[in-house]
Amino acid sequence: MDRNMNTTFNQLKTLLQEVHDLTKASAVLGWDRQTYMPPGGAAARSRQMSTLSKLVHERLTSDEMGELLESLDEWHRSLDPDSDEAALIRYARREFTRGRAVPADLVQEMTLATGEANRVWQQARKEDDFRKFLPHLEKMFDLARQYAACFPHFEHPYDALLDRFEQGLTKAELTRIFEAIKRPQSELFKAILGSGVEIDDRMLRQHFPADAQIAASLEAAQMLGFDLQRGRLDLTTHPFASAFSVNDARITTRVNENFLNACLFGTLHETGHALYELGVAPRLEGLPLARGTSSGVHESQSRLFENLIGRSRAFARALLPVLQKHFPAQLGDASVEAFYRAINKVQPSFIRVEADEVSYNLHIIVRFEIEVALIEGGLAPADLPDAWRQKFEQYLGITPPTDREGVLQDVHWSWGLIGHFQSYALGNILACQWWERMRDDLPDPDALMAAGNITPLREWLIEHVHRHGRKYPPQELVRRVTGGPIDPAPYLRYLQAKYGQIYAVG
Amino acid sequence: MDRNMNTTFNQLKTLLQEVHDLTKASAVLGWDRQTYMPPGGAAARSRQMSTLSKLVHERLTSDEMGELLESLDEWHRSLDPDSDEAALIRYARREFTRGRAVPADLVQEMTLATGEANRVWQQARKEDDFRKFLPHLEKMFDLARQYAACFPHFEHPYDALLDRFEQGLTKAELTRIFEAIKRPQSELFKAILGSGVEIDDRMLRQHFPADAQIAASLEAAQMLGFDLQRGRLDLTTHPFASAFSVNDARITTRVNENFLNACLFGTLHETGHALYELGVAPRLEGLPLARGTSSGVHESQSRLFENLIGRSRAFARALLPVLQKHFPAQLGDASVEAFYRAINKVQPSFIRVEADEVSYNLHIIVRFEIEVALIEGGLAPADLPDAWRQKFEQYLGITPPTDREGVLQDVHWSWGLIGHFQSYALGNILACQWWERMRDDLPDPDALMAAGNITPLREWLIEHVHRHGRKYPPQELVRRVTGGPIDPAPYLRYLQAKYGQIYAVG
Repeated sequence: MDRNMNTTFNQLKTLLQEVHDLTKASAVLGWDRQTYMPPGGAAARSRQMSTLSKLVHERLTSDEMGELLESLDEWHRSLDPDSDEAALIRYARREFTRGRAVPADLVQEMTLATGEANRVWQQARKEDDFRKFLPHLEKMFDLARQYAACFPHFEHPYDALLDRFEQGLTKAELTRIFEAIKRPQSELFKAILGSGVEIDDRMLRQHFPADAQIAASLEAAQMLGFDLQRGRLDLTTHPFASAFSVNDARITTRVNENFLNACLFGTLHETGHALYELGVAPRLEGLPLARGTSSGVHESQSRLFENLIGRSRAFARALLPVLQKHFPAQLGDASVEAFYRAINKVQPSFIRVEADEVSYNLHIIVRFEIEVALIEGGLAPADLPDAWRQKFEQYLGITPPTDREGVLQDVHWSWGLIGHFQSYALGNILACQWWERMRDDLPDPDALMAAGNITPLREWLIEHVHRHGRKYPPQELVRRVTGGPIDPAPYLRYLQAKYGQIYAVG
Repeated sequence: MDRNMNTTFNQLKTLLQEVHDLTKASAVLGWDRQTYMPPGGAAARSRQMSTLSKLVHERLTSDEMGELLESLDEWHRSLDPDSDEAALIRYARREFTRGRAVPADLVQEMTLATGEANRVWQQARKEDDFRKFLPHLEKMFDLARQYAACFPHFEHPYDALLDRFEQGLTKAELTRIFEAIKRPQSELFKAILGSGVEIDDRMLRQHFPADAQIAASLEAAQMLGFDLQRGRLDLTTHPFASAFSVNDARITTRVNENFLNACLFGTLHETGHALYELGVAPRLEGLPLARGTSSGVHESQSRLFENLIGRSRAFARALLPVLQKHFPAQLGDASVEAFYRAINKVQPSFIRVEADEVSYNLHIIVRFEIEVALIEGGLAPADLPDAWRQKFEQYLGITPPTDREGVLQDVHWSWGLIGHFQSYALGNILACQWWERMRDDLPDPDALMAAGNITPLREWLIEHVHRHGRKYPPQELVRRVTGGPIDPAPYLRYLQAKYGQIYAVG
């Protein structure tokens, strides 16, 4: 690297380190807001976080950034595209271009409108009154279309919305993926409901004191590799994970004293998110590449640790004794097989966040198809409750009795998060792609899990997924690990094998 | 205000709001570091906090700031000096001038040298090896002299060091104050030691379980007006207070299970700091004026709540029943008078942070005189241990047997904090000045305290001290409240009356 380019690149790096530190500072403020902040702190906290966002945005779209990127352009083309330097320049260019494309007026309107929409949505959901939310929903989709119009190079406006969460993913690609799973997944779900098999999960529905649940869940998270030297577990209303560096990732959980799953599997889910951030290569620390590459890949890690490991028959052998230690009276007599079946019980639910593995992606496909139709204009927002009920009946065979249990259940649209739901389905699909590859590489993963030895599995994930951070966009990461595109086949194989066995169907 | 000035002033305000938000974000990161951060987070946290400081410094000393201040100069002179606008411009000008006066090289050298000095000091204290720390101590005082030389307009180099913590306070003024208290305070202390009165404080030296100590201390803090809607209490190795807005101030405490004072009075001390920050006028929120005006005035609030209220005979009537509720076995039989005497027991100590009210300021005067002599060159750092022992003998009548209990005990010099110790003594003096004025205004403060009704006292402090935030420098604040300069007489009257009565001396 010649000396001039070296200086220019270091200037870019300094600017991006500032961006990263400001972003992480804001993450700490957000974590404190959810965990320990007294109520009086709320107003100033919003202002502080919005100042930090503003400074991040200013830096990413500054003239200085534009000039640095222009100076580095020719040199960038001479770099190995796999180098950290090339990845960092790609990242900066993408943020610069995206940030400059959206007028400040529109950004401000989106901020104001989402604040109001979220407030009204809370009220509308409480009162089960879709009409009340309707004008705000229309506004959200209208703003989303305006946002998409700022990026005319995308083939479909929905692609511009997707690109915020999954760089490079398109509506066409997602349609291909969802079309492939929709029928078989729906048929599997309906077959299970019609199988007449009733799994007894009463062992999970006893009284489990909060402190013991938290201690047991933390011990389970530690079995997966979560290390209190590099993280914490706290309690919040809505569980989340947040990382402040590659050596400090916090997770939170919640407790239902009459049902073990919420705290236990919620913790394992957030553990997966945290382990991803903790697995990023230390050399990337301090730069914006030091984080998970997309919402979907992040979700692939949380679902892998929660479900593919956490709800597996093999890991149940290691997990149950830990739970029995914390809950001798409640679980002392449980067999591994009965426990395994209980934690994998399939049951129809109208609520996405409570859905089992078999129905989960169907909940997402309903939302995806509705979002696309609303963006394309083929569906009017006023007709949304009907469209929701019809799709639910068609894919899941059940009809939500109220809008509160239907179209009003999720917070996302009120925040203007359109194009985001797919990440959850994509996460399930990607998790199974990593899983099949990993099972090819490791001699006997089931024996490892049964012995509670997750280290080799986690090391495989660090090597193939975590350490890259945000260096590669999701589809490129998939190609690097599996040699091909996003492929729903492993996911279908996983569901059919696991639940075909449990429910003796398919 | 004409339109142009309005625009320019608003630009200044926006810049200062950013400065304030960045400063408070950094405070949250610092609080998290002391309370909940896992050890792995340390390295990135230092980097994040140093980025935030850098951004603050850049803004305060930017060309933009310089130009704004120049444009506002004439208008500023036309303003009411008591207006918020004038105070904000004065603040910005002071920070701009101070920030620009010190070369970046020197700032960086100070940062590096203090890191190293602090590391070596920890080792030297552990090993009771002053020689090991000596070269770093020399470096610290050398850098302090270089720093002072950046401000040639001060009469004495020590004035430039003082000005960092107490704007406008001089070595001459401080000498006047300390000379006035030195002899009478020393004589009172020696008279007490020679009085033959032995106070029995065994009631405070029983086993008090940690949880109950924390609960009792929090309840006492709440009696003083600390409100969990606007604050929190957490545990740390070194107690501190930190405010993130005028509605969110956090305090921390520590517990010694065999001595009640550390947790209880430590909590009341930090409560005083927090109440000061929580009492700043809401209209100043979001601006750098929204904080305590100086270290000394801050300390006057912590000492007022800890000692003038917390250790008073009147408040003991309200406090003891609360403690008896939490510790029925330990304190159930205690009388108010015996409790009052126990919490005010005077006993010689070599350690400043454990010193009683009567000897505390003598500890500070030793340090002040040594700092001045080192800055002036009349004392060589190598002779410091001897000078320390001599002054201890002279003022307190006791001789520290080791340097660990002498010159090596405090962390401040290793951090380059020279000119800071005086704040603690000044706090005790100012507390008594507010106290006498308050007792003139309130009909019967002792009756209020005995009834546990601190609200009128706190409201008086809000009205006269807290609400102004950083609007007035310390000496101007004193003049506004008392009509005169900093005056040690109320402090001496307080000590002599209280301890003369307890020990039947003087």
